Amino acid sequence: MENKSLRCILKPKSVAIIGASRNPGKVGRVILENYINTGYSGRLYPVNKEADEILGIKAYKSVSDIKGKVDLAVIAIPAQAIPEVLEECGKKGIRSAIVISSGFSEVGNIALQQQIVEIAKKYGIAMLGPNCLGVLDMRSRVNTLFLPTYKLTEPGIGKVSFVSQSGAVGSTVLDVIAGEGFGLSKFISYGNAAYIDETDILRYLLKDDETKVVVMYIEGIKNPAGFREVAKKITKVKPVIVLKAGRTQAGVTAAHSHTAALAGNYAVQEAMLKQYGFTVAHDLSDLIIYAKIFNSEAEPSGNRVAVITNGGGTGVLTADAIADRGVLQRATYSEETKTALKSALPDYVNIDMLIAIVLFQTPGADSSVAAEIIKQKNEVNKPLVAISPGASYTQMHKIMMESGGVPVYDSPAAAVKALSALLKYSNYKKKRH
Amino acid sequence: MENKSLRCILKPKSVAIIGASRNPGKVGRVILENYINTGYSGRLYPVNKEADEILGIKAYKSVSDIKGKVDLAVIAIPAQAIPEVLEECGKKGIRSAIVISSGFSEVGNIALQQQIVEIAKKYGIAMLGPNCLGVLDMRSRVNTLFLPTYKLTEPGIGKVSFVSQSGAVGSTVLDVIAGEGFGLSKFISYGNAAYIDETDILRYLLKDDETKVVVMYIEGIKNPAGFREVAKKITKVKPVIVLKAGRTQAGVTAAHSHTAALAGNYAVQEAMLKQYGFTVAHDLSDLIIYAKIFNSEAEPSGNRVAVITNGGGTGVLTADAIADRGVLQRATYSEETKTALKSALPDYVNIDMLIAIVLFQTPGADSSVAAEIIKQKNEVNKPLVAISPGASYTQMHKIMMESGGVPVYDSPAAAVKALSALLKYSNYKKKRH
Repeated sequence: MENKSLRCILKPKSVAIIGASRNPGKVGRVILENYINTGYSGRLYPVNKEADEILGIKAYKSVSDIKGKVDLAVIAIPAQAIPEVLEECGKKGIRSAIVISSGFSEVGNIALQQQIVEIAKKYGIAMLGPNCLGVLDMRSRVNTLFLPTYKLTEPGIGKVSFVSQSGAVGSTVLDVIAGEGFGLSKFISYGNAAYIDETDILRYLLKDDETKVVVMYIEGIKNPAGFREVAKKITKVKPVIVLKAGRTQAGVTAAHSHTAALAGNYAVQEAMLKQYGFTVAHDLSDLIIYAKIFNSEAEPSGNRVAVITNGGGTGVLTADAIADRGVLQRATYSEETKTALKSALPDYVNIDMLIAIVLFQTPGADSSVAAEIIKQKNEVNKPLVAISPGASYTQMHKIMMESGGVPVYDSPAAAVKALSALLKYSNYKKKRH
Repeated sequence: MENKSLRCILKPKSVAIIGASRNPGKVGRVILENYINTGYSGRLYPVNKEADEILGIKAYKSVSDIKGKVDLAVIAIPAQAIPEVLEECGKKGIRSAIVISSGFSEVGNIALQQQIVEIAKKYGIAMLGPNCLGVLDMRSRVNTLFLPTYKLTEPGIGKVSFVSQSGAVGSTVLDVIAGEGFGLSKFISYGNAAYIDETDILRYLLKDDETKVVVMYIEGIKNPAGFREVAKKITKVKPVIVLKAGRTQAGVTAAHSHTAALAGNYAVQEAMLKQYGFTVAHDLSDLIIYAKIFNSEAEPSGNRVAVITNGGGTGVLTADAIADRGVLQRATYSEETKTALKSALPDYVNIDMLIAIVLFQTPGADSSVAAEIIKQKNEVNKPLVAISPGASYTQMHKIMMESGGVPVYDSPAAAVKALSALLKYSNYKKKRH
């Protein structure tokens, strides 16, 4: 029975946490705490063979003992015990499961992994994992991340959904996104992709109105034909940024030992991804550069970019960066930012995008300039990014501008890279529609 | 009379501040305040036509009125008034001057600029500027930066000297350096390079024991023959990182309107810079990536790099980045960082460099891991960098590791770029010696 829907995984009305423990620090315990502490409003059923109650909530020996309906089982117990438990879930009529535990294909236990896939198929359980962090849905507050909250700043509620084959890359990027100040819709860590894979996840996100931008970290593509089919559709509707690890022979070998992924021929894959309008990142830093610009949801009407700067040198570097990349065409303004922004206004009709370089180290650049840039961003309705490198005084204004919807970059090269990707995707979409 | 020595500019025993003002916010006033507040121990002479006393210090109508010897004149008055004042400096026997004021070649006043150069030559005044921020020497506490201190975090005392043709790029990079947590020896902003130019500054830094690493932002090379001569010498002794703006035709045009620099043919210049062992940056972010690794002063004995990671995915990305760049050769370790660092110890003999990926979002990665990495860095005496992307919890540990002498990067690509540059320079030096 084929069931690969993520609906119950992301929006369950009731959740059984199998492996919930009385011992602080245990994975199942941390997951239960996160559910309790961060606002999940559905029913919670801790499952533990030896406890009657955990954290004040009635616990069950097995899912079979639970009277009510259970939408999702979160499983965090040793790998060997999982087939039996998954069978019980199937018999209980639970239609979705997240297997957090590792100890499957990635360490050579291929038969064990195949066994749980067969059980999932038999009962029609939409199974995510194993060997994953699971999900964080900012709206339903489903949160299976078993990381101490002080280690990881949680992003605000937003429109970027982030799909990661690797749990650690996932949590790191979540944390970086939070630090950069833009919001998240969903985080989906899918690990070994034994059953639900990247293609199934993309299919869900294609239809998900809460998701405006998709960001992916993948190591392998399990179902290339299916992937191609959904890839073609999704980029007509929303941008997808993908960082594919295992681009080189060295990376391929490393990836295989990580999630048992077969990385495949990267050149062929990148060509395919680009053909379908994906924005391809080659490094973690690129992933953030791209996620940030697409999060702004601005659409360029053409390739003409104006550069407004309160520092000549950085203006020169930006001119170089624009010429280097060869995607944008420059229309120059070089005056003191504040006045320039105002005096440049009448010319906004002749430009498609704006780069405002605001060096907060220089006299005159203060929060009124940051406010003016936010105002312009809202009024001109064109892609506008800021370049503001610097320490604490600058960081303060960077956060202010990001909160106001202005993507802020640390360097000319990053800003130009971002706008170039935005323009490329915009052109792709126009051609496809 | 040729005098282009920076000695009196950086280490003066007495300074006249011409244009020191009673009005808060005026450039000359801010400079005087900075001298007073930040620990300069030499004699200060405010010069102002209309004041007898400024900030509690006796003021003078003209430098001629000063009885004692003056080593350095800092000039911050309108451009038109400068020739007369510089004549007075010459007659008074002042042998060095920093002309902060703008309004010369960069706005077409070529004759006025030539006039002050002639005066400097006539009296043997080592003149820096005009149109510059001047200098900050972390040890002598000479500081002519007229920026409010809250806008700019001052770096600690260190060994990197930063030379910038652009004042705004200069102050921005200073601030970024402070935020990244490594120290500064000197900052020299030289603006229009009317008299003292980048070649003269490199000559000084070549012999300066306080400077172990030179970082430069330049727009033009005024004296290519002289530059070549000192370039050949300096990279035998210390690394020089250079970001040359005006690499493209668009940049060249922008640079000319900024500091009247003639940017020249970039391809030829970059070839020359590389031939002499310079590390060439193409963006502000690269400048910081390179400055940080050279600041660590570690020297690789070969190209074998070990990657230790507590997150598989980031390990894969690092393997890709190493293969991409093709400079380093990888020797892999992939285990939980803490134990791996210890168990890897016996193999340290077979590797030349280390990359420690520490994702502080994951369980087990805490300050004891950061401390262990610092300890290893001190014990193994090989280049060691960390990769730790993330928000506040990570930033805290990043600062800890940076303080312990471990360069920390945000992404695999940045770390690999840094170590590759270090290796290239090390190979250059070996060949030249």
